[in-house]
Amino acid sequence: MSESDVQNNGTKRCKLDETRVDSDVTVKTQPSDTSLDAFEFVRVLNQRSQTKWIAIEAKSGDQKAVVLLEKMAFNESNARQILEDNSSASSLRLDFQNDIYSNYMAFPRSDLNAIKTTIIHPASDRHIQKYLHQEIRVVLETPRLYAEVTYPHIQRQQLSLQWVHNILDHKSETERIVCDIEDPDIGFVLLPDMKWDGIQIETLYLVAICRTQGVRSLRDLNETHLPLLNHIKTTSCDAIERKYGVTRDQLRIYIHYQPSYYHFHIHFTSLAFEDPGTVERIHLLDAVINNITLCNDYYQKSSLLFPLKQNDPLFKAFTDKSLEN
Amino acid sequence: MSESDVQNNGTKRCKLDETRVDSDVTVKTQPSDTSLDAFEFVRVLNQRSQTKWIAIEAKSGDQKAVVLLEKMAFNESNARQILEDNSSASSLRLDFQNDIYSNYMAFPRSDLNAIKTTIIHPASDRHIQKYLHQEIRVVLETPRLYAEVTYPHIQRQQLSLQWVHNILDHKSETERIVCDIEDPDIGFVLLPDMKWDGIQIETLYLVAICRTQGVRSLRDLNETHLPLLNHIKTTSCDAIERKYGVTRDQLRIYIHYQPSYYHFHIHFTSLAFEDPGTVERIHLLDAVINNITLCNDYYQKSSLLFPLKQNDPLFKAFTDKSLEN
Repeated sequence: MSESDVQNNGTKRCKLDETRVDSDVTVKTQPSDTSLDAFEFVRVLNQRSQTKWIAIEAKSGDQKAVVLLEKMAFNESNARQILEDNSSASSLRLDFQNDIYSNYMAFPRSDLNAIKTTIIHPASDRHIQKYLHQEIRVVLETPRLYAEVTYPHIQRQQLSLQWVHNILDHKSETERIVCDIEDPDIGFVLLPDMKWDGIQIETLYLVAICRTQGVRSLRDLNETHLPLLNHIKTTSCDAIERKYGVTRDQLRIYIHYQPSYYHFHIHFTSLAFEDPGTVERIHLLDAVINNITLCNDYYQKSSLLFPLKQNDPLFKAFTDKSLEN
Repeated sequence: MSESDVQNNGTKRCKLDETRVDSDVTVKTQPSDTSLDAFEFVRVLNQRSQTKWIAIEAKSGDQKAVVLLEKMAFNESNARQILEDNSSASSLRLDFQNDIYSNYMAFPRSDLNAIKTTIIHPASDRHIQKYLHQEIRVVLETPRLYAEVTYPHIQRQQLSLQWVHNILDHKSETERIVCDIEDPDIGFVLLPDMKWDGIQIETLYLVAICRTQGVRSLRDLNETHLPLLNHIKTTSCDAIERKYGVTRDQLRIYIHYQPSYYHFHIHFTSLAFEDPGTVERIHLLDAVINNITLCNDYYQKSSLLFPLKQNDPLFKAFTDKSLEN
């Protein structure tokens, strides 16, 4: 279960030991081993103030647990209720008033203020490590550092790409494919990313995986790949517009560096949707095409910046290298 | 009052007609014209599900109002209380359970679940227009479109830069200056951005405003500016590390294109802090230095992508131009 799972609200509800209290809210009588007050607060593992998310280490007896809390987004219905709830007036706290502008804290009825809660229990130390905050640092990768640090690291650490080949060979996820071009040089498969529910246009997210085997990442691109890049761009944009009604000027089309797997692929997301904290990893496809057009070996000659968590083995490899010099 | 003001929690509290109810919460008895239930819900103007923010048009009699709601971030203290509140167990709703993972909706006591509320009342149609959702589109600006559309638009629309000159000439904000280099070519002033409270390191945000007058934007940069760019980078990073203890590899250093004002400036923010939806506007300083080093006239020869709101006059200028051709 990843953080992106946690942030996806489209969860399936199991009907267990439930008591219906009104048309919208189903309250379950909790067995004592899963109610929140069975857990003792230990420490905050991580938090994101912008998305109102927090990860907590807790314990229950001698067992550890991870508790993830995220406030829910507003929708028209609960915004209307917060505004028109007669009892809310008594729980408004004025912060300041200046001319026509005034700031308050409001404390609406608790049923208008849900918190998505995930409990991992019992949790292992690996679960706790997964949610523990890791500092992110940027590194500037010169062509020499790529050759001496990153490339050997990729060779050593590369995970199996069997799942990519399963998609390209129509052994998996066949029914999810939006567009499939067989050509070995400019061919690719376009399909929804695993993180997208395939429905909500606001969070639209597809990936185009190329058929050519020679491109590990941005670093391997040169002008011989311009036909591939242009073909993926125009063909995917057409397919996305036909299927989802989203036009090219509403899309963010980009390549990650470093990528999460070293088989060349391109991301297509809605402009409205954005993972936080990834600006340094994003290379817009139009900029990449522009760069190679201006300078054939742009990605072999450039210094590229990218972010790394401090516990990423590649970060350690960069640190070790700088100690050597 | 901008949206960024609304998202800044460091507001000043006026002590008016208050009743203390406990050590943390000050409840004000609201005059009836400012309580939330005095307003009738009209429509949702805009919302952001990632940051849990919503803008509502409301009315009170024949007067219009804008109500902005944003859920508050968790902190250690309220996360601990939510977990250890004995009454919360009764308002947990199970969504699903799978092995050690379970998902719930929690409904804690309302005092643990504050909503930052801003009321603009009476609001004019311009206030409503300001908060009304505007579709964002990306445009690809070729050098020719820059010359024929963007450049004439900048000449026509340029707002007064008096406030920039006031800073450079030490007539305003003098006490806020972190670093000041007088040299006319590579000199600049570094100071906290207006959106930053100057305290919370997680949201650190400074701006370096250069002294040279010749650079409107990225489009005007060439290799003669490399000393300026490198000087701003190294000197500002040193000053930020000395004053705030934040090192270069924890900073996002970038230039906006289009900028919000056409006097060259560079943004320094904490890696942890990010405005949502701005990837297309961000050009990392290291990438800019790399591009000019590889190719002297990179920014004169490149096609540059940027985002525009559909009601931005520049968007209309681009649309009109494409109809011409």
